Amino acid sequence: MGYQQILEEIYQETQQFSHIGEPASYIPELTKVDPNQYGICLKTMEGETFHIGDSNTPFAIQSIAKVFSLAMAFHLRGEKLWKRVGVEPSGSAFNSVIQLELERGIPRNPLINAGALVVADILLTELEYPEEQFLKFVQALCHTKDITYNESMAVSERENGFLNAAIANMLKYYGNIENDIERVLRFYFRQCSLTMNCEQLATAFLPFSDHTQPFQFEETKLTSSQVKRINAIMQTCGFYDEAGEFSFTVGLPGKSGVGGGIAAICPRRYSVAVWSPRLNKKGNSVMGMKALEMLTTKTEVSIF
Amino acid sequence: MGYQQILEEIYQETQQFSHIGEPASYIPELTKVDPNQYGICLKTMEGETFHIGDSNTPFAIQSIAKVFSLAMAFHLRGEKLWKRVGVEPSGSAFNSVIQLELERGIPRNPLINAGALVVADILLTELEYPEEQFLKFVQALCHTKDITYNESMAVSERENGFLNAAIANMLKYYGNIENDIERVLRFYFRQCSLTMNCEQLATAFLPFSDHTQPFQFEETKLTSSQVKRINAIMQTCGFYDEAGEFSFTVGLPGKSGVGGGIAAICPRRYSVAVWSPRLNKKGNSVMGMKALEMLTTKTEVSIF
Amino acid sequence: MGYQQILEEIYQETQQFSHIGEPASYIPELTKVDPNQYGICLKTMEGETFHIGDSNTPFAIQSIAKVFSLAMAFHLRGEKLWKRVGVEPSGSAFNSVIQLELERGIPRNPLINAGALVVADILLTELEYPEEQFLKFVQALCHTKDITYNESMAVSERENGFLNAAIANMLKYYGNIENDIERVLRFYFRQCSLTMNCEQLATAFLPFSDHTQPFQFEETKLTSSQVKRINAIMQTCGFYDEAGEFSFTVGLPGKSGVGGGIAAICPRRYSVAVWSPRLNKKGNSVMGMKALEMLTTKTEVSIF
Amino acid sequence: MGYQQILEEIYQETQQFSHIGEPASYIPELTKVDPNQYGICLKTMEGETFHIGDSNTPFAIQSIAKVFSLAMAFHLRGEKLWKRVGVEPSGSAFNSVIQLELERGIPRNPLINAGALVVADILLTELEYPEEQFLKFVQALCHTKDITYNESMAVSERENGFLNAAIANMLKYYGNIENDIERVLRFYFRQCSLTMNCEQLATAFLPFSDHTQPFQFEETKLTSSQVKRINAIMQTCGFYDEAGEFSFTVGLPGKSGVGGGIAAICPRRYSVAVWSPRLNKKGNSVMGMKALEMLTTKTEVSIF
Repeated sequence: MGYQQILEEIYQETQQFSHIGEPASYIPELTKVDPNQYGICLKTMEGETFHIGDSNTPFAIQSIAKVFSLAMAFHLRGEKLWKRVGVEPSGSAFNSVIQLELERGIPRNPLINAGALVVADILLTELEYPEEQFLKFVQALCHTKDITYNESMAVSERENGFLNAAIANMLKYYGNIENDIERVLRFYFRQCSLTMNCEQLATAFLPFSDHTQPFQFEETKLTSSQVKRINAIMQTCGFYDEAGEFSFTVGLPGKSGVGGGIAAICPRRYSVAVWSPRLNKKGNSVMGMKALEMLTTKTEVSIF
Repeated sequence: MGYQQILEEIYQETQQFSHIGEPASYIPELTKVDPNQYGICLKTMEGETFHIGDSNTPFAIQSIAKVFSLAMAFHLRGEKLWKRVGVEPSGSAFNSVIQLELERGIPRNPLINAGALVVADILLTELEYPEEQFLKFVQALCHTKDITYNESMAVSERENGFLNAAIANMLKYYGNIENDIERVLRFYFRQCSLTMNCEQLATAFLPFSDHTQPFQFEETKLTSSQVKRINAIMQTCGFYDEAGEFSFTVGLPGKSGVGGGIAAICPRRYSVAVWSPRLNKKGNSVMGMKALEMLTTKTEVSIF
Repeated sequence: MGYQQILEEIYQETQQFSHIGEPASYIPELTKVDPNQYGICLKTMEGETFHIGDSNTPFAIQSIAKVFSLAMAFHLRGEKLWKRVGVEPSGSAFNSVIQLELERGIPRNPLINAGALVVADILLTELEYPEEQFLKFVQALCHTKDITYNESMAVSERENGFLNAAIANMLKYYGNIENDIERVLRFYFRQCSLTMNCEQLATAFLPFSDHTQPFQFEETKLTSSQVKRINAIMQTCGFYDEAGEFSFTVGLPGKSGVGGGIAAICPRRYSVAVWSPRLNKKGNSVMGMKALEMLTTKTEVSIF
Repeated sequence: MGYQQILEEIYQETQQFSHIGEPASYIPELTKVDPNQYGICLKTMEGETFHIGDSNTPFAIQSIAKVFSLAMAFHLRGEKLWKRVGVEPSGSAFNSVIQLELERGIPRNPLINAGALVVADILLTELEYPEEQFLKFVQALCHTKDITYNESMAVSERENGFLNAAIANMLKYYGNIENDIERVLRFYFRQCSLTMNCEQLATAFLPFSDHTQPFQFEETKLTSSQVKRINAIMQTCGFYDEAGEFSFTVGLPGKSGVGGGIAAICPRRYSVAVWSPRLNKKGNSVMGMKALEMLTTKTEVSIF
């Protein structure tokens, strides 16, 4: 059975879940999105593209952006990166400050908010034009210039982002933020506001699925080993406190965002992006989780 | 390059780490073991066996036993198992009671002590002769009767196992232990005291590396999906608060024990067991971690 | 207005609260008690006694016993006692294990369960016949032999006391219990099972209200400074996570028990004991709290 | 023995501790203060004043200001105040965010930083000219206009106050701050920067020591019951995680600040202020604690 047929089956079979969950309500801009949209795009290493549903509708990738900023920071700092941020699953919600106090300002991993704030701080230190260079890197990954920040969303998120501001202040208190807190927060929220569609997201993740190919996009260059490491971090930390559940039911490295997007990869085979705004209680897309679970079941290929 | 040559290279190249770390000191019986022993055994799905060093010296598998008891309980309870124990990484040390209080008696996963105590309780409820049936299951996995409990170690661990007794009492308090606490603890420590060598351990893990083969040993029968799920749990939860580090540097599902053993699998390729008693600060074998890191580097095959 | 009249007014005015709250249900023996009983006894330093209601009905003093065991241990160990247990309020429920893990086995104060278990352990180490000597000390404080352990309650509590057993095991793990855990638990639960009435309790607390008099009962002898210190500990730690509320509304050092008793003292004036089995959500007697609040309001004397 | 003689004895006998501890280093302005200064002032309800040492040298009262802002907010909101902030001891350091996350944004009490930020927010909501009115209230308490904010200290503290900014953001996230965070922080740090000497501080605390007198200063009016409640809160919460120790060794309600000041009261007798910048590990003045301990020992009067 080909991938297109599989996507079609998944699309049909997941319809039963299409009204479960609610979109994120804490970000005003996100509440304006039609919650019933649903799209999937899968790209293989051989260069084929399969899609279904609203796969060309742009949405805010939110936390999925953390994978891109991690890639840049890993390139810039190499192994020294891990002095500022860990690689262990957090075992708690994406925004917990408890862990941060207990572990004195070293975030558990770069895919929780605290870790992504440290990564943003590193990019601000290392890059001359961080916002532009970050955007160019993502555009290069997607082979298109047609990707932009949603400035009004970024501003709106900053204005309501009290918990992230709390986290940034704690990191600064523990000496793990070098730049001005406000600048770090603004850059972080701009990253989250990146607007992409499923096809672009699948394109951007394809290079992560194949560590045998050179990874170089704009100035960002990763070794084969570094690509694998990013996979390993997505595998154990990509879904907040549902990382185990995702590893358990889907079995692929991936990253979700509160905009309802999930990007995942099947090493040496394909990348896939799903989008549907309704979230489960853990903040992950209901349809997205179901679709990926069916994908690895139907293809009979996961990392395990 | 063949596996035997790879093992030989690993064996040589890891010698530089042979005096780093100390064996576990909190279990009196473990302190009697010569800390400089070191063995590896790798078994392929095609039926080949490769080994080097002290691969036939028996040692206490300790927490590696948690994978076997999980397999039995998963067979016996199916999906209902997850009402009693979670599948998320713990994000903290193997023996933390804080998580247990915050989450009111539901252990994060079956590979931390609290979770394994719940699993032991389930086996006590479900099985007529739990100790005998557990041993028979492991013997069947290893194709040998030559595996026994180390009774004096089990008794000695129970007598000094205050933290595990604390955890068992908390589980009982929260209603997540059905049987007598003392019986649960005694059964748990007997499981940990199982004495095996690297070759037996590699044999026992081989069936977990291939979900395309029927998994049936004595009464315990797992579906292909269940085998994959056990892999997923090992991947995210198998190394206490070093699970991310292991996933990151090695990239294989596995489980370690404070006796210095590590068993891991490369899905659809091989199982491997390494043993060396000196531990790092997180309680995992120093040489074992290094050997497996080199193995996936040299074979250029990991799950990512 | 004399104390008798005040007690009568309090007795009348608190009737409106007489059906609020429920008796403790986790100790089977306590559920057998008629929840609508209510008594008060007040004793002045001048030797007068005032009482009303069920002030001569015996009940299990439960945690109030912690004050007596603290007095004995303080006599036996002096300032060295504070190496084993702190003097700070716990800021959390009486039975939290989180604090114990974070502070590595040193209980916050001697009036939470963990601290009282350490105190019990000290008495077991120091005394030849701890059960007998503890009982004799309390009998001496009350000027009567008519006080006994409720053995069946002690046994029943031990059998269901999983959380206390968890705490005792953690203390042992951290090296803060010297004796056999089971012996410590049995002794602790016997102390809690002491059966006294309000009059006896008020008599027993009178010596704590006056540090200007010599404190000597059987072998237990406290200096004036030590008596004041026990008052200070009752003031800040006597009511679990309602210590601030009690200090705030009542303004007297005191100690409550889940049997529904509260004993308190007004330094250099009187001791008072109230008993009513219905508890609020924090585990303190509803009527007892109200009665004492009215007492300091009507007498216009508190420590502040 | 009269108070003056007692102060002189204390002054002599505490000299042996004069080089123990270090002044607070995290506030740049505080490091400029000569650490060897030491003064005491005691004022009786009868109107006498006793002092010794550097009792007329102004210093930053820091957290002692929390008592004044609490008094104003209690006047303005009455019992409703306790919906926004608790009255229980915190059982942890003055700046912990863990409690705040666990208890979802309700600070444990008004004398820890989180609670004082909520109090500052209430004053900003209720008062037309909060900074001016707060200053006037304190000036009225001291019977002098000679008290001002140290603006450069307030600014410097704000610029380095990352942890307090983290706390303020968390409070806002949980909906427990109504005003602009930056405004709350600036007001809070201005309060802390108030510069007073021991004599002024003793004068300002005298009205809290006597609940039988009307408490009215500028618009702030407290009932006798409210004054007692503030005493009760100081007693249980005034010394961060050393509240029990202070209650235990000194036995008076009081409040300390990292500037090295401590103000305390002996109900219906006197108020006292001590200042010496060297702090112990808990952030309380070494000499201040010793001096007050000796004071209650030598006068043989404490609340117990």
